[in-house]
Amino acid sequence: MKAPIDFYFDFSSPYAYIANEWIDALAARHGRTVRRHAILLGVTFQAAELKSPVAHPIKREYSLRDFARSARYEGVPFAVPEHFPIPSQNAARVFWWLQDTQGAGVASQWARSAFRAYFVRGVDLSEPGALKVLAAASGLDAGAAEAAWNDPAWKQRLKLANEQAVAAGVFGAPYFIVDGEPFWGNDRKPQIERVLATGPF
Amino acid sequence: MKAPIDFYFDFSSPYAYIANEWIDALAARHGRTVRRHAILLGVTFQAAELKSPVAHPIKREYSLRDFARSARYEGVPFAVPEHFPIPSQNAARVFWWLQDTQGAGVASQWARSAFRAYFVRGVDLSEPGALKVLAAASGLDAGAAEAAWNDPAWKQRLKLANEQAVAAGVFGAPYFIVDGEPFWGNDRKPQIERVLATGPF
Repeated sequence: MKAPIDFYFDFSSPYAYIANEWIDALAARHGRTVRRHAILLGVTFQAAELKSPVAHPIKREYSLRDFARSARYEGVPFAVPEHFPIPSQNAARVFWWLQDTQGAGVASQWARSAFRAYFVRGVDLSEPGALKVLAAASGLDAGAAEAAWNDPAWKQRLKLANEQAVAAGVFGAPYFIVDGEPFWGNDRKPQIERVLATGPF
Repeated sequence: MKAPIDFYFDFSSPYAYIANEWIDALAARHGRTVRRHAILLGVTFQAAELKSPVAHPIKREYSLRDFARSARYEGVPFAVPEHFPIPSQNAARVFWWLQDTQGAGVASQWARSAFRAYFVRGVDLSEPGALKVLAAASGLDAGAAEAAWNDPAWKQRLKLANEQAVAAGVFGAPYFIVDGEPFWGNDRKPQIERVLATGPF
């Protein structure tokens, strides 16, 4: 059995959203599964002394244009949300709660649902009321989801995921590790495809 | 006649070196030419409040690995030079001297020659003696090249190129502008190919 592809993402990252739309199909074509890691880019940015691309003059305007163009290139619907970027810890804690109590399938469904809500319909994942509505619409127990994101145990779980990501060398998102080989960025898709098809190159 | 592709580069950028190896063939396949702009990333980094990827902890190690892998992906020979990054203003001034006095063909040959010297054989372009030897080996008058990089007129020409690049939105390298559409990075090759083939998408 081949090792899963580790996929690190922040719910506030447009490039991670785009990658979330193609990674499962790509993995499946090569007999792989995807192991998702919801993290907070704020933590990895601090470790690597980085900031969001939209926090830089000049690069900001390019990035907003490139987010949308890269989505169109992959055939993925996309609109820059009114509130962007946002703190995504509640959505991430829900991910880990689902991952650890209901398994990767349910957690992946939540990842897809939350990413699409934010980057297609502009649903502000940092707003607790909107997040409860989204949880319910995604088939979850909204009260239990809210309890999870306020629970110190799931806060701690996300903290652990952030620390493990930094220890693994993650400094941005999306970030992939395939058989020990790291790939940063939605634009590393062709290289990931090649390493899956023919091994290290 | 279709507009040329504007290609901005710094002789110290590994990704710009890789792109310099494929941009002419890609342009030619689509009936385009390439208009090169040698610039200093230090200037665009300052304008956009950025630093080199190798100046960041964690990202540094990834980047060194990714430079080499991205070169292999494109089938381009590459070795991280012993001195990296380096100040590249002298090589850039020689580029503009050639561009403005002998034309784009000779300047492009110099760009290819200097990039390969640095990123294949590790020739330190910031060392005047090594640069003179390289200029001679590249078919130039080495004394005239040295005079050019010490000449206030060509220093001013490079300064103008830097200012024009910042004004055009350039914040990193390689940076391309195709019919007004900006693309940053060696990894935007597939998007550039698509826009050349089928227009804006």
